[in-house]
Amino acid sequence: VSGIVFSGNPLDRASNQRRDADWVAARLAEPAARVLPLHRLRPMVTDAPSLGWLDVPALQPAIDRLGAEAPIFLGLADGVPCFALGVSDPALEELAASLEAEGRSWGDPRAIAPLLPPGDAGVLAQARSVLDWHARHGFCAACGATTAPRTGGASRGCATCGASHFPRTDPVVIMLVEHEDRCLLAHGAGRPGNFHSALAGFIEPGESIEEAVQREVWEEAGVRVRDVRYFASQPWPFPASLMIGCFARAEGDHLDVDQEELETARWFTRAEIAAALAAGGAGEGYTLPQPVAIAHHLVRAWCEGRS
Amino acid sequence: VSGIVFSGNPLDRASNQRRDADWVAARLAEPAARVLPLHRLRPMVTDAPSLGWLDVPALQPAIDRLGAEAPIFLGLADGVPCFALGVSDPALEELAASLEAEGRSWGDPRAIAPLLPPGDAGVLAQARSVLDWHARHGFCAACGATTAPRTGGASRGCATCGASHFPRTDPVVIMLVEHEDRCLLAHGAGRPGNFHSALAGFIEPGESIEEAVQREVWEEAGVRVRDVRYFASQPWPFPASLMIGCFARAEGDHLDVDQEELETARWFTRAEIAAALAAGGAGEGYTLPQPVAIAHHLVRAWCEGRS
Repeated sequence: VSGIVFSGNPLDRASNQRRDADWVAARLAEPAARVLPLHRLRPMVTDAPSLGWLDVPALQPAIDRLGAEAPIFLGLADGVPCFALGVSDPALEELAASLEAEGRSWGDPRAIAPLLPPGDAGVLAQARSVLDWHARHGFCAACGATTAPRTGGASRGCATCGASHFPRTDPVVIMLVEHEDRCLLAHGAGRPGNFHSALAGFIEPGESIEEAVQREVWEEAGVRVRDVRYFASQPWPFPASLMIGCFARAEGDHLDVDQEELETARWFTRAEIAAALAAGGAGEGYTLPQPVAIAHHLVRAWCEGRS
Repeated sequence: VSGIVFSGNPLDRASNQRRDADWVAARLAEPAARVLPLHRLRPMVTDAPSLGWLDVPALQPAIDRLGAEAPIFLGLADGVPCFALGVSDPALEELAASLEAEGRSWGDPRAIAPLLPPGDAGVLAQARSVLDWHARHGFCAACGATTAPRTGGASRGCATCGASHFPRTDPVVIMLVEHEDRCLLAHGAGRPGNFHSALAGFIEPGESIEEAVQREVWEEAGVRVRDVRYFASQPWPFPASLMIGCFARAEGDHLDVDQEELETARWFTRAEIAAALAAGGAGEGYTLPQPVAIAHHLVRAWCEGRS
C-alpha cells in the first residue's frame, strides 16, 4: 500500500555498528554529519517544507550542555550520518530561538508530515518517537536509578542494576468493520468536531492481532466480527504506536455503543463514503480521516472494493 | 490460521469495568473467583495437564503478604473472575512448596503450552507477560519513584509524578523468505543444537511491519526482499512479544550472513522441508521449529503452498 505517511524511512539504521560507541562518535565527528533539532518534539523545518537539518557545529552549544550522548543516531542517508537532538532544555531557549533563522521554524509533526518529501516523514517518526522515549525514561523501571543513553541512543542502560531498556513500540489495531455494503465509523467521546474514524485500540498482553480486533469492536460497538484481514501498517509517533490496519466483517448490523469510549458510531454506505472522499473528506454532518492517517487508506480501499 | 499456541485466550478482559478498583475487589471477593499462581513465572499446572487454578482462600497468605492489589485481574471466564498471582517472594517459599500437593506442580510455560486445553495457553501467555512486567517495573521511568498496580493490574501508577504506565508489548517480525522453490532458515549464533528457524527481529521506532521485514532480512542475511505478505500473529510471552508472521520473496539467492547474529543460514528445498516435517521436524543435520512457535506454521504453510 503506497502513500502511507510516516512510512518509507530511507535511512540505514546500521543496527550492528551503532552498538559501538566509538563508531557512533566517529560518525558525529564526520564533517558531513547532519543533525535534526526538535524543540518540544517539533522538528525544525524549512520553508520548502523539508526537514531542517543542521551541521554539528551549529548545535555544538546544545551538545556541550546535554552531553555527547544526547544526539541520537538515526542512521545513514547514502552514507551521510544523521542524528536527532532534542533542544527543549530551558537552558537552551536562547539557542532554540537563534536557530529560527534563515527561513526555518518548528513544525507541527502531524500537520507537516504529509507535506514533506517522501521518506522525510518516516525519519521524523523515528526521531520524534525515540526522543520522546528518552525524555520520559530517564530512570530505571527495575530499580529507580538514573539511566543514560547507549548504542547511539537506540537504548538506555542502568549503571546501578545493569538493566538495558529499549524504546517501546505499542502495537495498535485499527479496523474498518464492514457489513454488506456499509462500513462502521465512530466519533470518539470528548473529541471536538464531527470527525468519524475507524475503531482502534491497543493490543493487550497475550493477544493476537485478530483477537484484539474482535475484542475492541465488541467492547466499543457491541458487534461480533469475523474474517479479520490485515491491510497495511503505519508508524504513528504520538507517542510510539505501530498502527496495524485491518478489515473485519460484522456478523450483524445491530450496534451497542460504549458511551464512555464513543460519542456515536454508525454504518455508512459506500455511496456516502464515495461522496465524502470526493469532497476532501467532508460528508454531511461528519468528516472522514485525512490522508495522514491509515484510517483514510482503509476507508478509501474499502470504498474502492479493495478490502 | 488455527492451531497457533498462545492464541485463543477465551477470557472477557472487562476493560471498562476493571478501571474501577471497587469492581475488581468485588470480583476477587466472589466465592467462585479463581487464581492462577505462578512461581518464578511458571504456572501451577495439574497432571491433566491443565492450568492449576486455586480458590482465593488457598492463596490468602500470599495476598496478605503481597497486598490486595497483587492478584492481577485476567478477565471473566463465562462470568467467573480469573486472577493471576506471582508467589516468587522468598517469604512465600513455604506456601509455594505446600501448594505443590494434590497432583499439582509448576510447569515450564514453553513446554506445557502445547499440551494445555485450547485457550488455556492464551491465558497463560497473558498471566506470564503481565506478571513479568509488574515484577520488572516497580519504579517510575519518568521520575524514579516507586509505582503501584492500578486497574486490576492492567497498569501501574506513580503517586509522585502522576504518570501512568502500561504493560509493554513488543512487536516482532518473523518472516519466511522464499526464492523460487526454496525457503531461507537460519541457526542463531550461540544457539545450541542445529535448530533452524525463520529470521526475526524487533520492529524499530518509526518503522512499518513491511519495512522491518526488509531491514532485518537485509541486515541478517544480506538479501533484498519484496512482496511482504502478512500471514498470522502470535502472542509470545518471553517476555512480552507479539510475533507478526510474514512471507517475503527474495530478489536473489546470494546470501551475506551476519556472523554476529547467525551461525549459518541457507536455502531449503520444499522436498527437504516436507521430509523433515513428516519426521516431526528432524531433517538431516537440522531441526525445524516445533508447533509451539509461529515459525512452524510459516514453514508448514509455505511447504503446503499456502504462502
